[in-house]
Amino acid sequence: MTPKKMAIIATKGALDMAYPPLILASTAAALGWEVQVFFTFYGLQLLRKDLNGIAISPLANPAMPMPMPMPVIVSILPGMEAMATSMMKAKMKKKGVASLEELRSLCLEAEVKMIACQMTVDLFDFQKSDFIDGIEYGGAATFLGFAGNTDVCLFI
Amino acid sequence: MTPKKMAIIATKGALDMAYPPLILASTAAALGWEVQVFFTFYGLQLLRKDLNGIAISPLANPAMPMPMPMPVIVSILPGMEAMATSMMKAKMKKKGVASLEELRSLCLEAEVKMIACQMTVDLFDFQKSDFIDGIEYGGAATFLGFAGNTDVCLFI
Amino acid sequence: MTPKKMAIIATKGALDMAYPPLILASTAAALGWEVQVFFTFYGLQLLRKDLNGIAISPLANPAMPMPMPMPVIVSILPGMEAMATSMMKAKMKKKGVASLEELRSLCLEAEVKMIACQMTVDLFDFQKSDFIDGIEYGGAATFLGFAGNTDVCLFI
Repeated sequence: MTPKKMAIIATKGALDMAYPPLILASTAAALGWEVQVFFTFYGLQLLRKDLNGIAISPLANPAMPMPMPMPVIVSILPGMEAMATSMMKAKMKKKGVASLEELRSLCLEAEVKMIACQMTVDLFDFQKSDFIDGIEYGGAATFLGFAGNTDVCLFI
Repeated sequence: MTPKKMAIIATKGALDMAYPPLILASTAAALGWEVQVFFTFYGLQLLRKDLNGIAISPLANPAMPMPMPMPVIVSILPGMEAMATSMMKAKMKKKGVASLEELRSLCLEAEVKMIACQMTVDLFDFQKSDFIDGIEYGGAATFLGFAGNTDVCLFI
Repeated sequence: MTPKKMAIIATKGALDMAYPPLILASTAAALGWEVQVFFTFYGLQLLRKDLNGIAISPLANPAMPMPMPMPVIVSILPGMEAMATSMMKAKMKKKGVASLEELRSLCLEAEVKMIACQMTVDLFDFQKSDFIDGIEYGGAATFLGFAGNTDVCLFI
């Protein structure tokens, strides 16, 4: 039987939306699917060696379940972004959710093909040395060639 | 003729992005499609019994058409989030757009299968009693089994 | 050989997320694919004659690479939204990235079918004269008819 194929375009770089591409890619790969992820725009942050800069903002997230109601004006005070980020990370660790680094390693071990968008690399003046090993560099046209033959293609 | 199939991964919980999964799911179901929606991350908010907490933020939404230009600093004043939410709701009601509750009921009546992401339920310490009846609980792997055989699969 | 088909649902109207639908649609069309884009919610902004109102917000974008770290409280000061927008536009121009207007023209020349969501037009009291020529007006049900027969369908 031909394995299922999945293509993901990962465009977000904040902590909450960094999880879905890595969770979906590693889950599909574990099911034996062939998976390619194209990291573009802010999604490129997920390929950096150091993922500590990935943060979550309580701003503009009225849907985020907070321990207590927090007026918007409080959430813009200095330090609240860092506080929301560390609260979320602590909660995930306590609940046994894998870290971004762990999920990314799982993807690479399962031979998920990870592609950095060359245009975004150039736009933000990133260096190849900023990124982890084992990835490729390419453009949207090449990626569409794969995406056009997949069973599932997601824009995240 | 085999009916078309659609899978939706609903990850957002703010008022504006709460509409698309419910509009698309109910529209496809009305066309006779088989539809499954997987509610995960903030999207889980859409399965709560009480949808009154779903709000919209004028922050970080420079694309939102407002009646008059509003500097960012004004939009963080206490009460502006509630004001934007009630303005949007009033506008939708006046224009005859169905409410989230109505769209959700339409989906259930049309046998859209609604699945709560068990991992997110655990992560945010939700109780099953927080959610409406008639839904299922499951994981990403099971959902991908359905998604891999659909005609349309969307990440919202 | 039957050409590949792509459907895009474009729902965002901020500068950063305005690019992906237009880049992907024009790239796919250049590869000979048949492409339709359905502009709904804030995505309708991309069909306006005047695209100067499309802005980027440094708020709630902790993933945005800024020249220097910027506390959240600074980013809400009046003028920072305009400043982030002009910085991003200047960077893109310097790097040779096409403007939104150029990409949109490429799409129209390549016969990408661009459809404005009639419900959103009504909801926000837009006039047809606000929009560029060469587009169509329609609903979600009609669009799903096309989307159900595509190779790639994306919600952006």
